Amino acid sequence: MKTIYNPTPKEWAALTRRPTITTESLNESVSTVLKQVKERGDQAIQNYASLFDGVQLEDFCVSKEEIQEASKQVSEEIKQAITVAASNIKKFHQSQIITEAKVETIEGVTCWRKSVGIEKVGLYIPGGTAPLFSTLLMLTIPAQLAGCKEIVLCTPCNKQGKVNEVVLYAAQYLGIDTIFKIGGAQAIAAMAYGTEAVPQVYKIFGPGNQYVTKAKELVQTQGVAIDMPAGPSEVLVIADEQADADYIAADLLSQAEHGTDSQVVFVTTSKQKIAEVTEALETQVEQLPRKELAKQTLTNSLMIELSTLEECIAFSNEYAPEHLILNIDNAEQYIDLVVNAGSVFLGAYSCESAGDYASGTNHTLPTNGYAKSYSGVSVDSFVKKITFQKLTKQGLKNIGKTIEIMAEAEQLIAHKNAVSIRLKKLSNE
Amino acid sequence: MKTIYNPTPKEWAALTRRPTITTESLNESVSTVLKQVKERGDQAIQNYASLFDGVQLEDFCVSKEEIQEASKQVSEEIKQAITVAASNIKKFHQSQIITEAKVETIEGVTCWRKSVGIEKVGLYIPGGTAPLFSTLLMLTIPAQLAGCKEIVLCTPCNKQGKVNEVVLYAAQYLGIDTIFKIGGAQAIAAMAYGTEAVPQVYKIFGPGNQYVTKAKELVQTQGVAIDMPAGPSEVLVIADEQADADYIAADLLSQAEHGTDSQVVFVTTSKQKIAEVTEALETQVEQLPRKELAKQTLTNSLMIELSTLEECIAFSNEYAPEHLILNIDNAEQYIDLVVNAGSVFLGAYSCESAGDYASGTNHTLPTNGYAKSYSGVSVDSFVKKITFQKLTKQGLKNIGKTIEIMAEAEQLIAHKNAVSIRLKKLSNE
Repeated sequence: MKTIYNPTPKEWAALTRRPTITTESLNESVSTVLKQVKERGDQAIQNYASLFDGVQLEDFCVSKEEIQEASKQVSEEIKQAITVAASNIKKFHQSQIITEAKVETIEGVTCWRKSVGIEKVGLYIPGGTAPLFSTLLMLTIPAQLAGCKEIVLCTPCNKQGKVNEVVLYAAQYLGIDTIFKIGGAQAIAAMAYGTEAVPQVYKIFGPGNQYVTKAKELVQTQGVAIDMPAGPSEVLVIADEQADADYIAADLLSQAEHGTDSQVVFVTTSKQKIAEVTEALETQVEQLPRKELAKQTLTNSLMIELSTLEECIAFSNEYAPEHLILNIDNAEQYIDLVVNAGSVFLGAYSCESAGDYASGTNHTLPTNGYAKSYSGVSVDSFVKKITFQKLTKQGLKNIGKTIEIMAEAEQLIAHKNAVSIRLKKLSNE
Repeated sequence: MKTIYNPTPKEWAALTRRPTITTESLNESVSTVLKQVKERGDQAIQNYASLFDGVQLEDFCVSKEEIQEASKQVSEEIKQAITVAASNIKKFHQSQIITEAKVETIEGVTCWRKSVGIEKVGLYIPGGTAPLFSTLLMLTIPAQLAGCKEIVLCTPCNKQGKVNEVVLYAAQYLGIDTIFKIGGAQAIAAMAYGTEAVPQVYKIFGPGNQYVTKAKELVQTQGVAIDMPAGPSEVLVIADEQADADYIAADLLSQAEHGTDSQVVFVTTSKQKIAEVTEALETQVEQLPRKELAKQTLTNSLMIELSTLEECIAFSNEYAPEHLILNIDNAEQYIDLVVNAGSVFLGAYSCESAGDYASGTNHTLPTNGYAKSYSGVSVDSFVKKITFQKLTKQGLKNIGKTIEIMAEAEQLIAHKNAVSIRLKKLSNE
């Protein structure tokens, strides 16, 4: 890792900059996939499955038999873990459901908001080496709590046409039965436009490779909502002198194993801790099956010494990390200083993997500095909040003049007239 | 208006389709503006101000003197109206600030969320014939309630370099003092990238013409958040037999005057009402200063008869209107049927212009069917919700095994190790 001692705030901007991801070149190829799926539906999906994934599919829909078969292959241990994690995720996300009070802003004028689940949502779960069934929990549970009526799941299959068994078991456990074996940009296209087999949805969630990300970005410009812009995963650990270097190293490595584009940053007030963590990293990394990957990630990563914990958090705010670990004494005392972060882990025992899997918080979080303006996924992500208002006769009399004056000042006379015509009739009553 | 009697649900899809807005051709010209401003900053803005708006500007920043001068030109009547509207908007939006409780998902594992204002936000207020100072209220008040630290306002000036006086007065009233005389795509670029004069922001809000809309769409793909995708304004009125045809016509016209791309839809259970509203429209439209515009909008608009109120609302849900007026008896009884709408107006006296200006609800709402997945602007739009978690030793012991099993099943061994290394040390204590 690159080590920087006491950089000045002017130098922070350069240190917080992520590597630029150029996806311009993908524009054309992904646009073609979208266009083909939009025009030719299932036929296009079949072609791409054969072309990109080397799999011949007559039917993308995962059958009940396949789901039952998958369930048999999953160990009781994993099933039990999913049950515990799902329970915690549900408990935390339930607390996000709030009924807001009606507000009488002025006598006779009552306004309120109501959360209504987005009717049709699409979830994408990548396949590949690591089957992210945990992400399926993180997206499905809030969707169900929000009251989404139709949940469509797309996930790729292998060359034999099989979907990962734990993903299928988790889907069954959660009660999702609309599952399609479709991966990549064509999956996003299928859910965005609808095909003969795949229902159209209004919002698409979930991680994916650069093709999936580009497809989500493009359908968003066509009016289909998406969860958030994507970027490589990252962690920033702030530690003081009391922190255990082994814990810090383990937390940094848990991010580093994601891929070489992952970001790992260690910020501390202690020069000694930098030395200890460097040593702990060297020992621990050798024990990892993905050690080559992790080592390469560490090469691009940063260790920074700063004078005070306040300065460390100020640096973190400029970086705006997806995950922020405050492995410091009395971490709670520093909460109000945190302005930009996706999710914050307090103290020595709140490791990032707790939030990744089972503590209850959501692991779909803003990366790449987007934590400056975006929140992670929550029940909010799956609802629209509709405003309602009711004016009584007296209410309209109370604010009618105000509306008339403002509408006239904006030269919108028909807006004014909608009030005037009512006030006139009311005055004749 | 086109009148359709009892269309079958199969015909609804065609009736709810909005005219397609093709903005592909704008891509290149707006991309050039963005690139120029990004590279050349203020110099590029000066050039575009001269080229597009015919105004030579040395300094874009609105001075204190200009603001004071503007304030003198605004009538007491308008100032008073702004005070009333702002008070109601504030009262309603205040109710959206909620502190969520901490949740102990399992013994020793505590999770919670905290709303933190987006530090830097940019507001765009269009100029042109109708100076939308009401939109400035609708964006600034929730931004301030959310705790946004820096609010930047861009709004175009006229050829003499003057900004509309009511917009300046409203800005002063609200306490905004970072105001730039910049319009169009170059204003969006300035706020997205920052220039010598204009601070960079993390999220951009506000309406605008097709260039502004395209610029917002493009900077969004570059990671700058925006309020929501844009489209022409629209209203859908549902009325029963008891409704006053004059009110319905006035509400339809208040939308029709916005522009020929506006959408106006009237849905009713009463054939008689269609005849009455048609007549009322003919009378009222003649009295409007923008009557040519309104007449043209009406030509493209729809009147639909359906059998029951439930069917009318089902049609509205498929249309997903920005504004929905339920001018029916006991409108409150139908609230739970409304699934897709931006803002809903209940009963005879809740005209759309009440919500446009002064009742307290926000008028920045999803158009073009986006109400299926997007909410209107609220305090939520100006915050990020950061999750926090604290695990005690016991907490980690309670969920450690679950995390280890799930991480291993996802083949993320370093994630597992971050737990194992802690559990091991704890067991030795």
